[in-house]
Amino acid sequence: MDVVDGTKRIVVAVDESSESMHALAWCLSHLLPSDAVLVLLYVKPPPPPFYSFFDAAGYMLSGDATAEVQKLGTRMVQSVMDRAEAVCRDFNHGVSVERFVGTGDAREVICKAVDKLGADTLVMGCHGYGFMKRALLGSVSEYCSKHVKCPVVIVKHQ
Amino acid sequence: MDVVDGTKRIVVAVDESSESMHALAWCLSHLLPSDAVLVLLYVKPPPPPFYSFFDAAGYMLSGDATAEVQKLGTRMVQSVMDRAEAVCRDFNHGVSVERFVGTGDAREVICKAVDKLGADTLVMGCHGYGFMKRALLGSVSEYCSKHVKCPVVIVKHQ
Repeated sequence: MDVVDGTKRIVVAVDESSESMHALAWCLSHLLPSDAVLVLLYVKPPPPPFYSFFDAAGYMLSGDATAEVQKLGTRMVQSVMDRAEAVCRDFNHGVSVERFVGTGDAREVICKAVDKLGADTLVMGCHGYGFMKRALLGSVSEYCSKHVKCPVVIVKHQ
Repeated sequence: MDVVDGTKRIVVAVDESSESMHALAWCLSHLLPSDAVLVLLYVKPPPPPFYSFFDAAGYMLSGDATAEVQKLGTRMVQSVMDRAEAVCRDFNHGVSVERFVGTGDAREVICKAVDKLGADTLVMGCHGYGFMKRALLGSVSEYCSKHVKCPVVIVKHQ
């Protein structure tokens, strides 16, 4: 269901990187209007492929291992969101904060979430992928700035 | 000489496009702190190449034609800056506005100006080139968001 309640939503894409926390801090100090809701958006990577015992070419993940990966993913969401909310508290804005967690390719999930949330602005750090993935896929911020309809702020961490 | 006087400078790249005026309006309504200076940055295209009378393969531009091109360029600067300042007045901010005019490739001039001005943030519309040039060179905003050090806001005109 799309969010179309007229509330101004500033979406900040957060992940484990210090770049994304710096982007969040920039948003809090430069951009956030008092009547807006700040949405912390975290994208979990897609679950690892499951190979059966008989698929000799692949890796086998037992049920336990799969559950462990999922548990780690959930803990990572919690850790990033907690860190992000601590940054929000540091700015003492009394800002309304919502969490939004998606799963899949970061570029696509962010674009879809921005659309779904009717975001007023998307704020993101510059490096959401590691070096190799960025070299192969281009940066997340580059993709999002091309594909979302709302203004995009790309914040570098100097 | 670089500007390093501690003033917060928000640089907005303006051109003839309605996209850039929309980006300026977005900046005025969402971003501009009261103590910041708004710098309107316009980039004139490089002057056309001059071919001598003896260069049969090229076009010949007489002194008069060259002067005419320069005059048109100057009028264009004036027109864009006037339009941009009218947008600023509409927001009735009492904002401090400075003009900065460069000449050359828009992508390089904008990046150098942002550095030189010690800009706090760069704001730009999404389409600074025509379709063909954008297809060949990539968009100005894409280039700038990769190369400048400060946060970049890319504002789409929907």
